[in-house]
Amino acid sequence: MREKTGKRVLASGAFELLHPGHVRFLAEAKRVGGGGSRLIVVVARDETIRRRKGREPILGEEARKEMVSMLKPVDETILGHVPFSFEKVMEEVKPNMVVFGYDQENLMREFMRFIESRGLSVEVVRLGKFSSQEPSSTSELIRRAAEILDKGSSR
Amino acid sequence: MREKTGKRVLASGAFELLHPGHVRFLAEAKRVGGGGSRLIVVVARDETIRRRKGREPILGEEARKEMVSMLKPVDETILGHVPFSFEKVMEEVKPNMVVFGYDQENLMREFMRFIESRGLSVEVVRLGKFSSQEPSSTSELIRRAAEILDKGSSR
Repeated sequence: MREKTGKRVLASGAFELLHPGHVRFLAEAKRVGGGGSRLIVVVARDETIRRRKGREPILGEEARKEMVSMLKPVDETILGHVPFSFEKVMEEVKPNMVVFGYDQENLMREFMRFIESRGLSVEVVRLGKFSSQEPSSTSELIRRAAEILDKGSSR
Repeated sequence: MREKTGKRVLASGAFELLHPGHVRFLAEAKRVGGGGSRLIVVVARDETIRRRKGREPILGEEARKEMVSMLKPVDETILGHVPFSFEKVMEEVKPNMVVFGYDQENLMREFMRFIESRGLSVEVVRLGKFSSQEPSSTSELIRRAAEILDKGSSR
């Protein structure tokens, strides 16, 4: 059992296809929370992906939530809100720290404006990019996968 | 800490893109081992994927191993051998139980011939398909992903 005291660390994402960048991001989010921290992950709703990315999600929200909940650093997984709401998530999770990935700059800026406007006190941490030769975003991974399968099937 | 006694359960796969079918397969493999079991996962080498699937792996073996090792049911992750070898894996892992997924029928048949020829005693379990409306194989997942991204980018 993980210790249930300590910092509550919040991370979020769509987690459409799990890639090494995701698992490193979540492991690092848990680590920066320090000993006894609890990592709570908000998985984006299908509706939010449609609105933000202008396309269907690759996997449905329940499947994405299920996969994220199976990762070792993750203590708790919840779905976001429709419509998207920092407010509801903050009330629900009550984090001490909110962690953003290197590719979540816009989301982080929106979040900073949100906490300033509400006068909320919460630690905000932005994690760097993990250097890797492997694809570290969903779109990069799919492009690579589609290329490889095309080549494979034409043999 | 997980208990270190009990059955040693071996599962294997390429784990190219993690999908809900993978995580359910591994959770079920750990469960059929019973209390205190230890799940050891063999991740296919890049060379083995090239030979068996006739195409490049989507992610390299180290990245695939890293992702699998981050899944909660997994106690230990190792890479397979080049050339592919049941013998070396069996010597290394010494499992009490070997688990196969519904889509590993050919591999299971090969393995049955292998243990018969060596007179090895090991429990072999084949797990069923998990019913889901989500893609449950790598190729299905990539097809769906490529379709969705194509549509998204043409908007």
